[in-house]
Formats: sequence, structure tokens, C-alpha cells
Amino acid sequence: MRIPVSKEILKAKEWLHGADHICVVGHESPDGDAVGSVLGMTWALRTIGKKVSSSLPDDVPANFSFLPGSEDITSDIPLDADMLVSVDSADLNRLGVLVEKLAAPIDINIDHHISNSRFAIINLVDSETAATAEYLVGLLSLLGLSMNDKVATCLLTGLVTDTLGFRTSSTRSETLSAAHQLMQYDVSLHDIYHRTLHRRSYEATKLWGQALGNVCFEDGLVWTQVTLEGKADIGYTARGDADVVSQLTAIEGTEVAVVFVERVNSEVKISWRSLNGIDVADVARSFGGGGHQAAAGASIYGTNLERAQDVVLDRTREAMHNYRIQLTS
Amino acid sequence: MRIPVSKEILKAKEWLHGADHICVVGHESPDGDAVGSVLGMTWALRTIGKKVSSSLPDDVPANFSFLPGSEDITSDIPLDADMLVSVDSADLNRLGVLVEKLAAPIDINIDHHISNSRFAIINLVDSETAATAEYLVGLLSLLGLSMNDKVATCLLTGLVTDTLGFRTSSTRSETLSAAHQLMQYDVSLHDIYHRTLHRRSYEATKLWGQALGNVCFEDGLVWTQVTLEGKADIGYTARGDADVVSQLTAIEGTEVAVVFVERVNSEVKISWRSLNGIDVADVARSFGGGGHQAAAGASIYGTNLERAQDVVLDRTREAMHNYRIQLTS
Repeated sequence: MRIPVSKEILKAKEWLHGADHICVVGHESPDGDAVGSVLGMTWALRTIGKKVSSSLPDDVPANFSFLPGSEDITSDIPLDADMLVSVDSADLNRLGVLVEKLAAPIDINIDHHISNSRFAIINLVDSETAATAEYLVGLLSLLGLSMNDKVATCLLTGLVTDTLGFRTSSTRSETLSAAHQLMQYDVSLHDIYHRTLHRRSYEATKLWGQALGNVCFEDGLVWTQVTLEGKADIGYTARGDADVVSQLTAIEGTEVAVVFVERVNSEVKISWRSLNGIDVADVARSFGGGGHQAAAGASIYGTNLERAQDVVLDRTREAMHNYRIQLTS
Repeated sequence: MRIPVSKEILKAKEWLHGADHICVVGHESPDGDAVGSVLGMTWALRTIGKKVSSSLPDDVPANFSFLPGSEDITSDIPLDADMLVSVDSADLNRLGVLVEKLAAPIDINIDHHISNSRFAIINLVDSETAATAEYLVGLLSLLGLSMNDKVATCLLTGLVTDTLGFRTSSTRSETLSAAHQLMQYDVSLHDIYHRTLHRRSYEATKLWGQALGNVCFEDGLVWTQVTLEGKADIGYTARGDADVVSQLTAIEGTEVAVVFVERVNSEVKISWRSLNGIDVADVARSFGGGGHQAAAGASIYGTNLERAQDVVLDRTREAMHNYRIQLTS
């Protein structure tokens, strides 16, 4: 991928090379692109002999602990850091607890989100790239930084996870080219894939069994539920649905998929996915939730699973019905 | 990928350009690489104005029917074809019912299997490539053939399916480069991925629910079963296990995964997968089956599911035990 050299990029290069101690920061609830880009940038800056620290507001999820340098990530901003670089954060608030610890503005903001608020002094944002890691593959040499096995492992992890293994519609020809460049180094795509996307806990697998065994299909609408009793039976303790909702979208003929997750204190968490043009965020908003056209969520409190399901499915059917009428009119 | 120009390649180029009617053939039980390579080669040969027919011994599976030209594939060898090109077949016998219809030897054999028996007059085999489709990406220009949107769609399908979405250990840096080249054309990786790897029938999803709900885990050994009663309950009529076995290999800590599929007439079909060095083909052979070190299968007849399971799990545990002793000694 050829990135045009801009004044901002040249200024960022000058600043990075002039700094003594650089701190690279990423966003809360870090995903693979956050951890991979923070660590990839950290190792790349070390190739020019800089002292570099890596900071994330939350713990590194266990499936990314294989990344070199992950054990040195803290939730502190070192007092002697004279340069702050944010990667993969669309907004300053996404830095969570790190925000209060900032003694100065962020110097350089490197990101791929279209919604990036350009919160730093120098803002390098390329919303065409599928992952911040993809952007960094092209950017590093322009910043006078080198690639090596460690940088490549971290960036390939960001790239693979943010594209769900090159599966998302954001995956472009250039994304594959970036992956090709990273694989020139001593990295195992197979291993990264297995550790971050394929591997599942025994409990999550049993949860899939329950949820997929109870799946219902009706005229393009697919749904299932995860109950408190079911979770207790199999000893599943995580809050999420273990990605059951994307398994539902794999079912032939699915237009809208809905998962109901029963939680303590009469909370029912609902996740929608839309595979055609139906705006599920609009449905989610009618229950106080939100999201995007194709993926949305909401929580209903003070009800039980069955009642929540009836109301939500009715509202969703109505939205699907209206959408179809709109299409044919 | 740079392929060295060999005498065989030059001869193949001369033959293809001199032919009038070329028939491209592929193997029985065609997978994505078989269908994709047959059709990719068909469309590529049409770029030099040749009359081209495509033949497969078995029907094209429904998930590949979106490929351009799939509706014209027959299980006949046209009588006026003066050149036969086999793609993705390791052996002549893999051509199934087409073998009896051959009036002449196969002229050109293009394949990536290491076990290829070099059954044609000209044999172009590259066992380093992850898919025959990957090999064809590099080979086409050397054969004087052009790429276009149709060729690219067919070959990208072969590449994506044979690597399970770039997930297999056979996926190399050059594989990603080939995918990058194909994505220069009007193709949708996202769409191919969804149609061939992600999408599942409602019945197969319910089957996953049953099988994953009943999964057992014991010291690195993971197993489950698909029963006749269960299949009848959900109306699942296919013979296979809907890829349940690879879902088991995703479970953390799995060394060996086994799936038992109950079939009519007291047949129990067993599939093994090994994630460490245990040779499951060796275990399968002791039940009259076979396969590779990492993936094997066998059928036991005249027994019931429970008894088959007891015997097979005991033999598998024994193999795992011996393997561990061997490792520590």
C-alpha cells in the first residue's frame, strides 16, 4: 500500500525521532487491533533505539498474552514520557482511566476509524484501511521505523482479528498485500488465527451447543437465547454470548438474527444483526439501546426472558415487515 | 509468486494454443478447489478464443453454484475434444466416472498434491502451493492465458476454500500475494467467504447444537456424537457431520478430537483430528480405516454407538498415553 507522504507524516517522523521516552496508548476493552497496534508500534519505535512504554486502560485479554511485550503493558503513563502516541482510538474518551493520567495532550493519533475525532496535535487517520495495524504496515517506513519479527507478529494479529480472518467487507486487496508483507517475517498466520479466532473454551462450546440447539427460524428471522440456568449448568461465567450471534448470521436465509442473554437482576441483554438493509439500530433504540444499521444491542430491565422475547421479536418482525413494504413500493 | 519457466510449461503452452476444443476435468466429490480450478482454467482458456468444456464426475455442490460457468459443467467428455486438461486431481482414479469416458490419455495434469502420480503426458505439479488455484494464479501468464473477473472469482474461491479462509498451515506468504492479485479484479472476498465457508443450513446449525451440547472433555481428549435419532428429530439428512469435528478442535486444551456419527445398518463412522504429534491414522487403521497423521477416519459395522465409542475411545486414550511416554523418554 502506498501512502502519500504528507506534512503531518513528516512532522510525526521528526517528533518521534527527536523524543527520548515515548508512551504508546490504546483504548479500553482492548481488541486484537488495539493490543497488536500498541505493541507493534512499541517494537517499531524500539528499532530506532527509543525508550518506549505501552499503556492500556484495561487488562490484555488472555488470548493476546502470547504477543511479545504484552506482559509489560501497564495502565500507567510514565512521568518521564516526553511523547504520547495513541493508536486505534477513535476518541480521547476511549482511553478510559488513562485520560485522567495524561499530563499533556496526545502528540500523535494514529487510527483507521472514520469517526476519529482528531483529538491529538498530529492526526494520522486512514479510514480506508481495515485495521490500524494495516495502516501501520504502510506507515512505518514513512516514519523511519523498521519492521521485524516482533512488529510483524503484533501487526498481523491486529489485521487478522479486525477482519475476522479477512472475512469482513472492509477487507481490501491492499489488506491482503499488507498481510503478505508481514508474512515475509518469522510469523505464523496459522498460529495467530488459532489463538485469536478459532480457539474457544470448553464452556463456551457447551454454550454454543445450548444456544444453537434451541435456535428458531421464521421467515428470515432467526433467534435464540442464553439462560441463567443454562449458563449455571455448564459453568459459563462470562457476561457475553460467546459470539453466538455471528453463528446465527451463518444460517441460510437469515435476514435478521437476535440473541437474548438472561442476566442477574432481571436484565435481558439483546443483540441484533442485520444481513440486508434493515436498520436494527432503529429497533434497538426503541428499547433504549443503539448501534449501527447492521449490528445493535439493548438491555431490558425488570422483565423475564419470555416477555422480553415476545415484545422484542414483535417489534423486530414489524421492522422487517415495514422494510419489505418499502422495498416493493 | 514466481514460477521458473520449465520445458514442460513451454510445451503445455504450445499444446494449449494449438488445440481446438479443450476439455478441463476435475475430481469426484468436488471441493471448492476442484470446481474453482476447473472453471478458472475454463475461463482462462476462453481468453485465447478456444472452445472449452468443463467436466466433473459428480454434481457441483450447491454452495459453488454461484460460480460463473458452473451450470455448464457436465459429467461427459465431448467426443470432439482434442485436448484434455486435468486440474486438482492427484490421481487418474480421482476422475471417477470420467475415467471410463476417456478416449485418450490426459494431456496436461495441473495439481498441487504432493502425492500426485504424474498420470498425464505433461505434468505440472507444485506441492508448495496451498491450492491448485494458487498455482494457477502464477501459471496462467506463463501459459499465455489472461486473467479476468470470471477467472479471478473462480480461483479466489479455490484459494479461500482449500485454505479454510487462509487458516491452514499450508497458507504461505505467497498465498496471500496470490489472493491480493486476484482481488485486483471485480471479485468479493467477503461474498465468497460467506457463501462457501460461513453459511450453514438451519438443520446443520441444529446439529451443531446437539453435538456441541453433548461434547465431552477429558485430559486433552474431546469427543461427541451425532445420533440417528438426533438427526431425525431435526430433519438433518446429509451423511456427514457438518464439520462438527473441526469445531471440537477449537476447544482449548484439545489434543485429539473424535466424532462418532451413527448411520443406518449398524454403521458407526468415526472421524479423528490430532492437534499435536499423535498419529490418528494409526488408530484409524486398527479399525480398518486410514488417513493422515492429523486427520483420519474409519467405519465400524454391526455394533451400536455406545459400544463403538467405548472401544474407540479406549484405543485412542492408549495411543495418547503411549505418545506421552515416548515424548518424556
